[in-house]
Amino acid sequence: MSAIEAKLKELGIVLPTPAASVANYVGYVVTGNLVFVSGQLPLEDGKIAVSGHLGKNVTIEDGYRAARISAINLLAQLKAATGGDLSRIKQVVRLTGFISSAPDFTDQSKIINGASDLMVDVLGDAGRHARISISVAALPMGAAVEVEGVFEIK
Amino acid sequence: MSAIEAKLKELGIVLPTPAASVANYVGYVVTGNLVFVSGQLPLEDGKIAVSGHLGKNVTIEDGYRAARISAINLLAQLKAATGGDLSRIKQVVRLTGFISSAPDFTDQSKIINGASDLMVDVLGDAGRHARISISVAALPMGAAVEVEGVFEIK
Amino acid sequence: MSAIEAKLKELGIVLPTPAASVANYVGYVVTGNLVFVSGQLPLEDGKIAVSGHLGKNVTIEDGYRAARISAINLLAQLKAATGGDLSRIKQVVRLTGFISSAPDFTDQSKIINGASDLMVDVLGDAGRHARISISVAALPMGAAVEVEGVFEIK
Repeated sequence: MSAIEAKLKELGIVLPTPAASVANYVGYVVTGNLVFVSGQLPLEDGKIAVSGHLGKNVTIEDGYRAARISAINLLAQLKAATGGDLSRIKQVVRLTGFISSAPDFTDQSKIINGASDLMVDVLGDAGRHARISISVAALPMGAAVEVEGVFEIK
Repeated sequence: MSAIEAKLKELGIVLPTPAASVANYVGYVVTGNLVFVSGQLPLEDGKIAVSGHLGKNVTIEDGYRAARISAINLLAQLKAATGGDLSRIKQVVRLTGFISSAPDFTDQSKIINGASDLMVDVLGDAGRHARISISVAALPMGAAVEVEGVFEIK
Repeated sequence: MSAIEAKLKELGIVLPTPAASVANYVGYVVTGNLVFVSGQLPLEDGKIAVSGHLGKNVTIEDGYRAARISAINLLAQLKAATGGDLSRIKQVVRLTGFISSAPDFTDQSKIINGASDLMVDVLGDAGRHARISISVAALPMGAAVEVEGVFEIK
């Protein structure tokens, strides 16, 4: 078992099988050493785990959890992109966290920390990344959070 | 005539001449094998074809059409980036679809399919891409949709 | 003094020291010849210089200034990424400008010109970039603008 798989087990995280795409896009594209992963929603067992708008009907804690679940789904895509070998992840390059929120919400960073913390919890220093956090009007399926990522693999 | 140009003709699509930039940015930048294209609006003959907000005063059908027109404008930029030879497109790497919408709109995927379908209609498997779909508060010139893209060329 | 440092001096711009990250993300990540820089807010001396929503309680002039300050903060990150040598910037590849605004705001381009103009003022042709401009619901710390960038270095 690789160190990363051991860490996932220690954290009690089981990576889901990426959902099959139902449209003309895919979960990820590899170009050179970079992997561009599609925006991931906080899906658990095919259902949105946290829906709604921060600053309105979603707590900071639930927003953080939504970002963490989205990040787990990013790792699930990366596992597919690396042929099942997550130790091929050299660096998380950039994450963008999109938060469905009311116009007066200002705690975007606390929410997206859920994704950032997950990456460093699992990957250590290779999990540190450039980051963008913004509040958007709404997200697919009413999700509270969506996270996309660019990764370098070896 | 290349297979891609033939496909465009078959679909009745005429790529417009990219609008000259009127500010300190450009339509695209090539770096290595990647092309980063500026966000494209649903412009036809210099006018926004679909304006307004999804979930308020724009139908799903018109939103889909707006995404399709934006994608045609991405291809027009790529034609310039490849010196007129679209067969140099190796892969559509990532599209981001921004949708101007009300906070209760949840059909983002149906809208951005307009861009995804266009890419696969024209480019086949090379048109399949990672994707991000989000609703934003508003877009330049009141447009209903904006689509940006990263592409790999050869 | 490099030409770029001389230009900064001529423009009266002093690049701040990038703020130390207080979470599990970093100011920038270098991958190959690309630098992905985290979203930068209009921070001056650790405070948000322009907060609020365009089209509601922020003028076009202040929005433009917010984008310019954000771009200065991007350059400050790049200075760190290049070991202090800004002449290693080969090209500004892509900027995304996020504007906190009301749903009826349509002058996104005028705001993000503040970032685009700064890049070309300082870097000349190397400062011309692909660009995305969108209005979002809200931004961290109530900022009016956030700008992220991808850069090619040599």
